[in-house]
Amino acid sequence: MNPTRALLRSITALNERHGLFEPGGSVLVAYSGGPDSTALLEALCLLSRRHRLRIEAAHLDHGWHGGSGRWADACVRRAASLGVRLHLGRLSRSRPVGSKMTEADARQARYAFLVRTARKRRIGIIATGHTADDQAETFLLRLFRGAGPLGLAGIPAVRAAGAGIRVIRPLLWTDRSAVMSFLRERGVPHLSDPSNKDHDRLRNRVRHIVLPFLEEQFGTSVKSRLNEASAACSDAALELVEAAERARNKVLSRRGGRVIVKLDAYLACGRAVRMELLMSAWKDLGGEHRGLTRHHLEGLDRLSSGTGPAATLQLPGAVARRSGGRLELLRTRRLSRTP
Amino acid sequence: MNPTRALLRSITALNERHGLFEPGGSVLVAYSGGPDSTALLEALCLLSRRHRLRIEAAHLDHGWHGGSGRWADACVRRAASLGVRLHLGRLSRSRPVGSKMTEADARQARYAFLVRTARKRRIGIIATGHTADDQAETFLLRLFRGAGPLGLAGIPAVRAAGAGIRVIRPLLWTDRSAVMSFLRERGVPHLSDPSNKDHDRLRNRVRHIVLPFLEEQFGTSVKSRLNEASAACSDAALELVEAAERARNKVLSRRGGRVIVKLDAYLACGRAVRMELLMSAWKDLGGEHRGLTRHHLEGLDRLSSGTGPAATLQLPGAVARRSGGRLELLRTRRLSRTP
Repeated sequence: MNPTRALLRSITALNERHGLFEPGGSVLVAYSGGPDSTALLEALCLLSRRHRLRIEAAHLDHGWHGGSGRWADACVRRAASLGVRLHLGRLSRSRPVGSKMTEADARQARYAFLVRTARKRRIGIIATGHTADDQAETFLLRLFRGAGPLGLAGIPAVRAAGAGIRVIRPLLWTDRSAVMSFLRERGVPHLSDPSNKDHDRLRNRVRHIVLPFLEEQFGTSVKSRLNEASAACSDAALELVEAAERARNKVLSRRGGRVIVKLDAYLACGRAVRMELLMSAWKDLGGEHRGLTRHHLEGLDRLSSGTGPAATLQLPGAVARRSGGRLELLRTRRLSRTP
Repeated sequence: MNPTRALLRSITALNERHGLFEPGGSVLVAYSGGPDSTALLEALCLLSRRHRLRIEAAHLDHGWHGGSGRWADACVRRAASLGVRLHLGRLSRSRPVGSKMTEADARQARYAFLVRTARKRRIGIIATGHTADDQAETFLLRLFRGAGPLGLAGIPAVRAAGAGIRVIRPLLWTDRSAVMSFLRERGVPHLSDPSNKDHDRLRNRVRHIVLPFLEEQFGTSVKSRLNEASAACSDAALELVEAAERARNKVLSRRGGRVIVKLDAYLACGRAVRMELLMSAWKDLGGEHRGLTRHHLEGLDRLSSGTGPAATLQLPGAVARRSGGRLELLRTRRLSRTP
């Protein structure tokens, strides 16, 4: 199969599974000018007639490096040659001199720009160029950094971004090498991102050192194995979230500033659902996801089942108390300030 | 904390979570004479008073290498010095000359010997020396070989082995390095298994090359991260299996040699549960787990939802047919023999 057909087919298969496009809808492509987003823009233009899509693109100039202005110019020319309307943004230089923008800051700025542009243009779908390689890298990163039950689920093909906007990843079943063949075959110019080498060092280490090492050890199918595992975890995670959602009203309630866990209903749930419910209770209390470790969750679970020694448990900035078939979570001052 | 206290504590914590021991019960330790099982035997003897356990041990001489008889003798001496009754087995040499016993064959022979011995002695619990290192290695092996939704769940701390016998892994939260410190501190002699280097090459590659490489890249906490991920997958997998079990009676039924899937009830389930149900239907039909790939499962799911083009699907040795709100699975001759 030639590279163009192969790439379009992998997008079509993903669309059949996850329902990426709505016929007659509009799509805003996040267009950095690098190979992935260049291929995405080109491919969606090729598919636009079949799926009756209107394609626009958005490029944010981060001002990261000297050549970024020239880069934006190249994106403008490419979009013009495809007959695609391009929305150009530029990050203001309001950061203090010497302070570096992190990769997380940049991503946030990029998404904010995309959502703003989509809203202004009344476009319901934002498409980003994440590939099967990004998915495998993300899986490994989360695995080695430590991920909870849902963390391994990886990059979703479709997710709601609020305000009626969906983010889709049409290239999520396409390898980066297939992206490069596609661009070569079609003679499409692209830029190669110099920032790739500087930002998010850990991801670059996974990309350039860890994945090649694993392919050497286990063969080149490692990447697709990782993506299968990631997809399986996504499915299982979805099941878990839905089961917790169904159990929620029977188990959790609020009274004043407290969150009450009804223990008979709680203990009737499986362990993974119980962990989800505890995290949910913690968020109802105003806590952040990262504020509660697996260690805390397990302590709370032991407290709930009455197998632990105590009837109360101190949490970071809160206390949990078991009495009379209920577990109460109550916000306190920060523990470090407690006299 | 000294090594003995640390090791006993990690067993006790695992026991609190998973209920390994029954006070007053008997435990048969799978005792190879290598460091892990030597530490396990020693530790369970130390804990036997507190948990009122009767400890026996079993050693199977595989006849793998010239020194294996001397090895069995060393096990006999060690057990005698602990006052533990040791059951000794020897593999018969009935294999054809030159045929090599695989690691899988050896494992099967070992388990059969353990179960036989446990039954004869009316012992309800078999304990094996799997450590946190084994768990991390297993997780990586399954990940890189390709694992379905449940495959990543890893080695369970407790599992039923049939005939009222449970297999427990008391060292599953203990690192191999902690096992070595424990043995050193107590001055307990152990053998180092020469077969480790020959058998199951892929596992040895993970142990000696891949894990050290990952620790170099991501720090020594990688192993515990992998074990957390494995535990999280176990919890999610359990949830999935239970959800599928609950849905089973509403969805699946048998009629003659056919398995019927009721599609309204089937399609009301989440995707991960649907995959479990299809695998369950396949087994009801007499199929083996490995006979059906993820690709087949997804084809069946598309057929069920009516989004695929056809109303039938050929499977290896079977056919699936959708009609009137039902999916029928019917065993046929092997496809390769079909005229």
